Amino acid sequence: MISGEEYRERLKEHKKEIYVKGEKVGYDHPNVKPVVNAIAYTYDLAKEMGGVHSDLINGKVNVLNAVIKSFEQLVFRYEFQKELSHRLATCNYRCTGCDAINSLAAGLNDKGRKKLFEFLKEVQKNDLACTASLTDSKGDRSKRPSEQKEQYVRVVDEQRDGIVVSGAKIHQSGAFASEINFVLPGQTFKKGEEEFAVAFALTPEDKGVSYVVQNTGYQALQREGADAGNPKYGDRITCVVIMDEVFVPWERVFIYKDLRATASVLQNFANSHRCVGAACKAEFLASMAGAASLMLKANGLENVSVLRQKVAEIVGLSEAAFAISIGAAYKGEKVGEAYVPNAIMANSAKVAGVDSFMKAIGILTDISGALPATSPSEEDLKAEGIGEKLRTILKASEKFSPEERLKIAKFVSFWLSSSHVFGAVHGGGSPSAALIFLQYLADFERYEKPVKDILS
Amino acid sequence: MISGEEYRERLKEHKKEIYVKGEKVGYDHPNVKPVVNAIAYTYDLAKEMGGVHSDLINGKVNVLNAVIKSFEQLVFRYEFQKELSHRLATCNYRCTGCDAINSLAAGLNDKGRKKLFEFLKEVQKNDLACTASLTDSKGDRSKRPSEQKEQYVRVVDEQRDGIVVSGAKIHQSGAFASEINFVLPGQTFKKGEEEFAVAFALTPEDKGVSYVVQNTGYQALQREGADAGNPKYGDRITCVVIMDEVFVPWERVFIYKDLRATASVLQNFANSHRCVGAACKAEFLASMAGAASLMLKANGLENVSVLRQKVAEIVGLSEAAFAISIGAAYKGEKVGEAYVPNAIMANSAKVAGVDSFMKAIGILTDISGALPATSPSEEDLKAEGIGEKLRTILKASEKFSPEERLKIAKFVSFWLSSSHVFGAVHGGGSPSAALIFLQYLADFERYEKPVKDILS
Amino acid sequence: MISGEEYRERLKEHKKEIYVKGEKVGYDHPNVKPVVNAIAYTYDLAKEMGGVHSDLINGKVNVLNAVIKSFEQLVFRYEFQKELSHRLATCNYRCTGCDAINSLAAGLNDKGRKKLFEFLKEVQKNDLACTASLTDSKGDRSKRPSEQKEQYVRVVDEQRDGIVVSGAKIHQSGAFASEINFVLPGQTFKKGEEEFAVAFALTPEDKGVSYVVQNTGYQALQREGADAGNPKYGDRITCVVIMDEVFVPWERVFIYKDLRATASVLQNFANSHRCVGAACKAEFLASMAGAASLMLKANGLENVSVLRQKVAEIVGLSEAAFAISIGAAYKGEKVGEAYVPNAIMANSAKVAGVDSFMKAIGILTDISGALPATSPSEEDLKAEGIGEKLRTILKASEKFSPEERLKIAKFVSFWLSSSHVFGAVHGGGSPSAALIFLQYLADFERYEKPVKDILS
Amino acid sequence: MISGEEYRERLKEHKKEIYVKGEKVGYDHPNVKPVVNAIAYTYDLAKEMGGVHSDLINGKVNVLNAVIKSFEQLVFRYEFQKELSHRLATCNYRCTGCDAINSLAAGLNDKGRKKLFEFLKEVQKNDLACTASLTDSKGDRSKRPSEQKEQYVRVVDEQRDGIVVSGAKIHQSGAFASEINFVLPGQTFKKGEEEFAVAFALTPEDKGVSYVVQNTGYQALQREGADAGNPKYGDRITCVVIMDEVFVPWERVFIYKDLRATASVLQNFANSHRCVGAACKAEFLASMAGAASLMLKANGLENVSVLRQKVAEIVGLSEAAFAISIGAAYKGEKVGEAYVPNAIMANSAKVAGVDSFMKAIGILTDISGALPATSPSEEDLKAEGIGEKLRTILKASEKFSPEERLKIAKFVSFWLSSSHVFGAVHGGGSPSAALIFLQYLADFERYEKPVKDILS
Repeated sequence: MISGEEYRERLKEHKKEIYVKGEKVGYDHPNVKPVVNAIAYTYDLAKEMGGVHSDLINGKVNVLNAVIKSFEQLVFRYEFQKELSHRLATCNYRCTGCDAINSLAAGLNDKGRKKLFEFLKEVQKNDLACTASLTDSKGDRSKRPSEQKEQYVRVVDEQRDGIVVSGAKIHQSGAFASEINFVLPGQTFKKGEEEFAVAFALTPEDKGVSYVVQNTGYQALQREGADAGNPKYGDRITCVVIMDEVFVPWERVFIYKDLRATASVLQNFANSHRCVGAACKAEFLASMAGAASLMLKANGLENVSVLRQKVAEIVGLSEAAFAISIGAAYKGEKVGEAYVPNAIMANSAKVAGVDSFMKAIGILTDISGALPATSPSEEDLKAEGIGEKLRTILKASEKFSPEERLKIAKFVSFWLSSSHVFGAVHGGGSPSAALIFLQYLADFERYEKPVKDILS
Repeated sequence: MISGEEYRERLKEHKKEIYVKGEKVGYDHPNVKPVVNAIAYTYDLAKEMGGVHSDLINGKVNVLNAVIKSFEQLVFRYEFQKELSHRLATCNYRCTGCDAINSLAAGLNDKGRKKLFEFLKEVQKNDLACTASLTDSKGDRSKRPSEQKEQYVRVVDEQRDGIVVSGAKIHQSGAFASEINFVLPGQTFKKGEEEFAVAFALTPEDKGVSYVVQNTGYQALQREGADAGNPKYGDRITCVVIMDEVFVPWERVFIYKDLRATASVLQNFANSHRCVGAACKAEFLASMAGAASLMLKANGLENVSVLRQKVAEIVGLSEAAFAISIGAAYKGEKVGEAYVPNAIMANSAKVAGVDSFMKAIGILTDISGALPATSPSEEDLKAEGIGEKLRTILKASEKFSPEERLKIAKFVSFWLSSSHVFGAVHGGGSPSAALIFLQYLADFERYEKPVKDILS
Repeated sequence: MISGEEYRERLKEHKKEIYVKGEKVGYDHPNVKPVVNAIAYTYDLAKEMGGVHSDLINGKVNVLNAVIKSFEQLVFRYEFQKELSHRLATCNYRCTGCDAINSLAAGLNDKGRKKLFEFLKEVQKNDLACTASLTDSKGDRSKRPSEQKEQYVRVVDEQRDGIVVSGAKIHQSGAFASEINFVLPGQTFKKGEEEFAVAFALTPEDKGVSYVVQNTGYQALQREGADAGNPKYGDRITCVVIMDEVFVPWERVFIYKDLRATASVLQNFANSHRCVGAACKAEFLASMAGAASLMLKANGLENVSVLRQKVAEIVGLSEAAFAISIGAAYKGEKVGEAYVPNAIMANSAKVAGVDSFMKAIGILTDISGALPATSPSEEDLKAEGIGEKLRTILKASEKFSPEERLKIAKFVSFWLSSSHVFGAVHGGGSPSAALIFLQYLADFERYEKPVKDILS
Repeated sequence: MISGEEYRERLKEHKKEIYVKGEKVGYDHPNVKPVVNAIAYTYDLAKEMGGVHSDLINGKVNVLNAVIKSFEQLVFRYEFQKELSHRLATCNYRCTGCDAINSLAAGLNDKGRKKLFEFLKEVQKNDLACTASLTDSKGDRSKRPSEQKEQYVRVVDEQRDGIVVSGAKIHQSGAFASEINFVLPGQTFKKGEEEFAVAFALTPEDKGVSYVVQNTGYQALQREGADAGNPKYGDRITCVVIMDEVFVPWERVFIYKDLRATASVLQNFANSHRCVGAACKAEFLASMAGAASLMLKANGLENVSVLRQKVAEIVGLSEAAFAISIGAAYKGEKVGEAYVPNAIMANSAKVAGVDSFMKAIGILTDISGALPATSPSEEDLKAEGIGEKLRTILKASEKFSPEERLKIAKFVSFWLSSSHVFGAVHGGGSPSAALIFLQYLADFERYEKPVKDILS
């Protein structure tokens, strides 16, 4: 297992086409670097918390690159990511890589799985940073893929050594800073739509891939270099991944025109990502609880019990969310070669996690006061004429300097006014999507049976 | 492990003072019998699902009588009770007995624990049905116990062979049909209040104990013998337990004037009961989901997707609640001689469980239509003049007779208009109480630390 | 305007077929009398609060019998019913009568309206108690009325002097104690279904009408004569109204095979009832706030600020609900001859009102403690052996006797465990039904237009 | 009444000290101009919707500058602001000016009111744009003002012609673009704290006033000139107002060391602002409903009924919020010289409004999909290499160009990721503050009385 620094070094060799606001940028760009920092941390934390054993290379690997084999390993994954969520206060970006590895290990056919494991050996040996993307641009939702092929990642040419693919994945967190990007199907397909039933891995060397970074307010702040509440790791930075006639050798093509494997990998990915999402959100809430607690202290309000109780409410939501993910892991099962969480609990975790996330945001907004919104820039505190005055009026509790209080307020503001809400709600699909899954997964007979027995 | 029938036989030997509406009644009284039926089922289910090993008697015991030793045993307890909740659609009554055994095993001092284990040997050998009570009547909440001793269970005399206690426990589910009733402290006490710091076990032979059964509308229905939606097991039937100079031999006195043990047992009981409460509520929700699904079918509405999706929403809440209890069990620890759930997750489970319970009630009310409220009596369907007409207009889906549809509606009504809501919300203390626990249990430093690191 | 006593006297002349548990009963039956009491109070309150002017008889009439002509009259109606809700803590039963009068005045064609006004003159002169029923039994929801005629109120014969109708209305609050029962269509009908498009009024003299009273736990308590938390006015008592070849003279037939009038009356009824429902629920919440406040006092907890704040939360929900109904009235309009509330706000009021109602129930449950569930019977307090002991332990605050505290607890229990929840949620249709209305009523262009302007 | 253009012209004469990121800026700065645009619109809308009559100048004035005299005028104010909220999708900034005028007219003593009316004549004649500020920086919340005078606006010198004040108001929306800024007390004061009990008006000519603009991500976007979802009117832009020995002539000092007037003005301001906040939020929700509806259409999802129903849910919340404000206005009363909304309903409106706002944000997030978060910059669509490809994959419904769809997504993002949430939640104080008001305003006797009558 390498260090974060080694990962950073390795990145330098890659020449990816990354666009921000219409211009090509490098890994040092202020909207790109936070993602690199976050991914680097996933390496450093593995040094601290350890890895898990992989049969493939007969050695320890970062859990995010592992084929999960047991309940304990799955819980360890959740523990690892929960720690990342709390320390980074943002996405760790490799989560989807782990979901991809495991949903492929679960859902592929034998041939595909064999290829996967060969490929994984290299990934694990080199400790490569992996991500995954699923959602096609989809265009007009009332049309089938074949009516608007350009809206789907698809095979445009089949060659002796591999395939050529075109299309775009529209929402992917941090792809531009990963080393392996798994491209998976974003939906199931019907007979006759086999050209879209494809899953493969991209490497930094592949030609024809461009990444277009999202642009929300928080990124604009980052570009200015001040007032970004989470200065080192930033918010969840996503991008559009455009593939323009990209050649992929057969060794990295895991699904090819296989509708069954497509459906299985998709469903396993959804379950996997929805479940870990509860663990991840648990510690986003923990980060909010910490921010709230510090804000109260900085305001001199830490002894107001009705406010502390509201922090405790966030804590309760956080602990419950993490507990759900453990429960779902315990009730999980072996599918194919991977141990995956219980499907119905995983979807329930998603719905519960989002609900708790929105509640926590409401509480944090209420008890933090308006300072996170109305606070001036860090630069104002240094400005002639107003700086000294601002420092006076921003001083509250004696235990915090005005600068420290402002930083806390900016961090609260980061939680409430960056694009995190979206990420948390939509990662792994919307809550509405999880509810639809639940409707299909629920065995209504199981629920009715004891009632019938009681009434008979 | 005995059968339900054996338990019923054994009850006949006991002459308890049970009051309903001012009169002494026996185990066949319609408000008492459903509790006996529910407890009997706890025996029969153990035959079906098996027991757990007890070192004390070196054999299998009903998990509800066991000192829980591991995560797996604790999850088995939750599985067992969840099954009971779904099949009984009401309290199983022995839950608090299990909480008592384990909180005593966790919190007692050495001498007390030795006595407990001796006592438990008999309990386990005979497979006795145990319950527990905590809440004193408390009187005026602004006064200390010493100002109103009559409002607390207390030692009124100390004799060579044991103690004499008086007082009352005001809320206890099903005590009148149990064989052992653990009487535990309902709060912590200060120095000088040692007379209240007492924990002991009551047996059916003890003189001076009376049980006064609650009287809500549902019990009135039971007395009339028709229209009780859960005809066999009824709603959660509670009582007041009055102790009037009851002699308890030293062998059954586990805490005596020990303020530390009192606090520890109390806290462990609360955590234990709040955690299992999430598992229990999970399958109350499953029962509601089953009822909702049947109601939709009986109404001919099972294909309306927006309605089925709402059933799926209840399913999601149910599965999440159960998953939380497993998570809390996994993060549990050995305290004294018992493996107990994680304290902070247990309290979080309580808050989340009640929240889900209230949500599910709202959903069930919305999608069941008004029939559960406005349906006539079963007897009307047999009455001359109107019976035939009612049977015609109560017929909806062809798959259900009017009588069957009415029964389902009555079962829904049972969930919504019996005293279950209270039981679910208050068992183990109110959600507000759990929030206060959370405030004390939460290590705010743990939440602040990573935020400070990010901002430093 | 007559007194409640005069109404009671008049009832004695009526011989209605009222069934409870399969047997015919009179107005003194414990399940019938509370409805009579509630309706009688609507007369007495009119003496206290005054009536409104009616052009039809050129004099003052009870607002519940009036054709509402203005915003001020509509608000007066809401004020009147809100007062009833708070004082009765249950349905006033004449609400639907007022909705029927006004939706007919709004939606009828000229001929129908002329008949209505002639009929209303008699109603107003004699100050008759009116109710209305809409919901047919409907049978299998997947079938059209013509496939299962017996599930709908319909014309079975047309005679020179009138029509003969058969069928049943399945949910109607208090019909058995009213003097006029308006029977209105429960849904719209298509061409070819004209036989169901009928609206008329029933009088106590009409032959062939039977009323079958609902039977929930609360009614069982009433029959026993103790422990009914709202002893005089009871819970919302509904019934099934069965019509078996009932002759209705033309003078009382307001819609006959008119599909347009059917749709208009139905929609106006729904809007009218959903809007007043917010005013009504506002003071159900006020009753809960009063109950909560008394419970806290009786428990000696009235100075715990976190608990009082929760009562204030109920108060806030109550006041907001009433304000919505006023706002909807102000934005109302003249339709036909009646001033009706704003349709979209009326439906919004319904959704908001139910939401607040469920929230208030959750709060009341939380802060009342478990006594409302576990309290013994009033009769236990008088029983030998336990009565005196119970009186001791049920004593809390010195300002309340044990009997008074028990009464308050029983009243709280009445709010939480009677069939009120159903009535509040389903009166005027389920919240889901109101949401569907909103979808059709909302002019999405109005919402999009300013957004388009901003973005253009 | 002047036009927006005239207001803009007038601004040019003012030389205010406005700081953005440590530098002095003018009215054309991208973070200042949107506020100017919004305020200019308040003038243009008055031309469209008309004004109200003012006795003071015996002519029509913009309702935002009027002393409200009646229910109808108050509703007109709400209608006017609701229209502004929908068309601007942000704060109109003059709202607090109107609250200030009316809370002063309500709460001042005779001498103060006389001065106010003289001053208002000039304001109305010249149609000046007014705002108001209340919240002092407050420093350590556990200290009284006299222990940290620098944290409060206070009189530092009393001169023959007026007073000299110092201090800061920490949260004020749009003050830098107003012409009159009312400075009002942010809390009540005790005897001995009279130096803080002061209320006055600032004009652009006053020396010693600086405005430091907030700096959130959205402002950074504005500075870059692209991707700001609400390009013309921006988000709610607040500032800190610093007063450094500002001389205020007696004519503009309305409260001076009068503790009673301070309390009355403060309470009336809170009620006024909390009530109009519900009307204002109503149309923020309307804007979200419009945005949601357009997003669905642009995605080709407008016929998915479960999604449209969720838009209808926002509509329901919006209409209910507006109805509450009307109800509160109707139940209002004359206080001093102003007609003010009902105090208890106004605070209920605040709590309900915030609750609905948070719900709507949750719904909008769910149904908009992830595009609002992950969408690239407008500039990417024009960039060589990727522009054309992006245009292809961002095309969904044929009725919308990729640019149009992106604009809608950016507008949704503006609602979810700008500092609006804070403004909506904290304007007029936090919801928790409104709940505390409710606790004091609620006459618990009124709620208990009918319950006592029922139980007696």
